[in-house]
Amino acid sequence: MTEHSLWRFARALHRAINERQPEDLEALIDDDVDWAIYGPIDMFPFFGARRGKAAVMEVCRQIADHIRVHRFDRESVMLGVDSAASMMRYSLTALNSNKPISLRLAHFAQFRAGRLLSLRVVIDTFDLVEQALGRSIHLPQIA
Amino acid sequence: MTEHSLWRFARALHRAINERQPEDLEALIDDDVDWAIYGPIDMFPFFGARRGKAAVMEVCRQIADHIRVHRFDRESVMLGVDSAASMMRYSLTALNSNKPISLRLAHFAQFRAGRLLSLRVVIDTFDLVEQALGRSIHLPQIA
Repeated sequence: MTEHSLWRFARALHRAINERQPEDLEALIDDDVDWAIYGPIDMFPFFGARRGKAAVMEVCRQIADHIRVHRFDRESVMLGVDSAASMMRYSLTALNSNKPISLRLAHFAQFRAGRLLSLRVVIDTFDLVEQALGRSIHLPQIA
Repeated sequence: MTEHSLWRFARALHRAINERQPEDLEALIDDDVDWAIYGPIDMFPFFGARRGKAAVMEVCRQIADHIRVHRFDRESVMLGVDSAASMMRYSLTALNSNKPISLRLAHFAQFRAGRLLSLRVVIDTFDLVEQALGRSIHLPQIA
């Protein structure tokens, strides 16, 4: 039984971000990869959509410039033959401010021949924005 | 081949919200259900954690008081024997303001004997807050 593509990809991604060693990751990205992290690109220019291996490797370099991953917990995971979805909690440091950031996200990934073909990430972005700002945003109750 | 619990649950949930007919939904919720929609509860009091069938039915009533679902697209879905995860896009109306809201979310669900045992929902909450406010929130670029 071979290891699921998700585990190899996750190790390579974290190595690319924390150790700035992108070689393993590059070998696990399909040339035609379709990538999207939904969120406010005004504040986080490395969010948004990317297409193709070069664009994805560049955005991973940008992510590595801005965060360090301390810990992640995979709270839920579903694995298919060539697909995977997880709900995760990350403990990060924002490198520009040295602020600790706690992040909840869900991702859906598809693989082809062991390489990442598609990634979609949904983040609890309001919570993230407040942490990155270092203050809460006043909200009216809509009820 | 029986229908997956997710489809029956999704129909009942949408019926409870849009038609205020909670009977089907009530039959599909485990007594010990564990429920969480992550997001700013100051603005959306029906977000947050709930435990047990009565609390979940009450929060579904609150959701029905505040939104109507016009359309949803399931962009990704993964099904296990007693579990499911989807990435979805919803078109809603906020009933208090009559504003259209477009929402992206990911959910992870677990079922027991066909009833919902656990639900976790991650939403692109910053985008949601801006739409509910009807204006954009100025953000500095962190780069």
